[in-house]
Amino acid sequence: MMDKINLQQKFLLFNEYWTPKIIGELNEQYVKLAKAKGEFVWHKHDEEDELFMVIKGSLTIKLRDRDVQLTEGELFMVPKGVEHKPVALEEVHVLLFEPKATKHTGDVKSEITVEDQEWI
Amino acid sequence: MMDKINLQQKFLLFNEYWTPKIIGELNEQYVKLAKAKGEFVWHKHDEEDELFMVIKGSLTIKLRDRDVQLTEGELFMVPKGVEHKPVALEEVHVLLFEPKATKHTGDVKSEITVEDQEWI
Repeated sequence: MMDKINLQQKFLLFNEYWTPKIIGELNEQYVKLAKAKGEFVWHKHDEEDELFMVIKGSLTIKLRDRDVQLTEGELFMVPKGVEHKPVALEEVHVLLFEPKATKHTGDVKSEITVEDQEWI
Repeated sequence: MMDKINLQQKFLLFNEYWTPKIIGELNEQYVKLAKAKGEFVWHKHDEEDELFMVIKGSLTIKLRDRDVQLTEGELFMVPKGVEHKPVALEEVHVLLFEPKATKHTGDVKSEITVEDQEWI
């Protein structure tokens, strides 16, 4: 059984942007942490809903019809099939919750797609 | 599609202890919020892992062989089948993540078991 997880300590373990790290697994879902700054790619996940929770900083999740602005202590769930594009003007720390099969760039294969996600 | 969720605002909407409220649903899982103070019952969930994340305050999750002490920004996952008993000396605000089928008292039917969990 895992020990408890301290989010601040986990965020000290990596610095790459847009490269989610796995911190836990339950019920076929992964809990991941990501640091982000700048613009991600437009993408969607055909079969999986995705939860974004901002732990530190601010994140904009662009949808095709509106922008969702998230700050610390706020979360948003992107339903399966919905195109979205995360954007962060300054560095943001985010907790993600999504099925184990989810690729971070969804249906889009780009140079930033990480094939093997790392546990920290 | 849901709007974003602000955790602090959601916690203002209820005051009952040990009565998780549903704030979101994704991939057959619920995101819930709970306020707790005092001792819960020993129980386990035979088929479901359960995530506890402390948003405010401190929570002890007693296991049969040790205590896990959680403060703000810390999380712990109780694997399926593992007996646990949450205890909070002072009021604590907790985010839960677990499958939709999960009852908060697991295999134990007690006077505090809530049959129909409420959305807020």
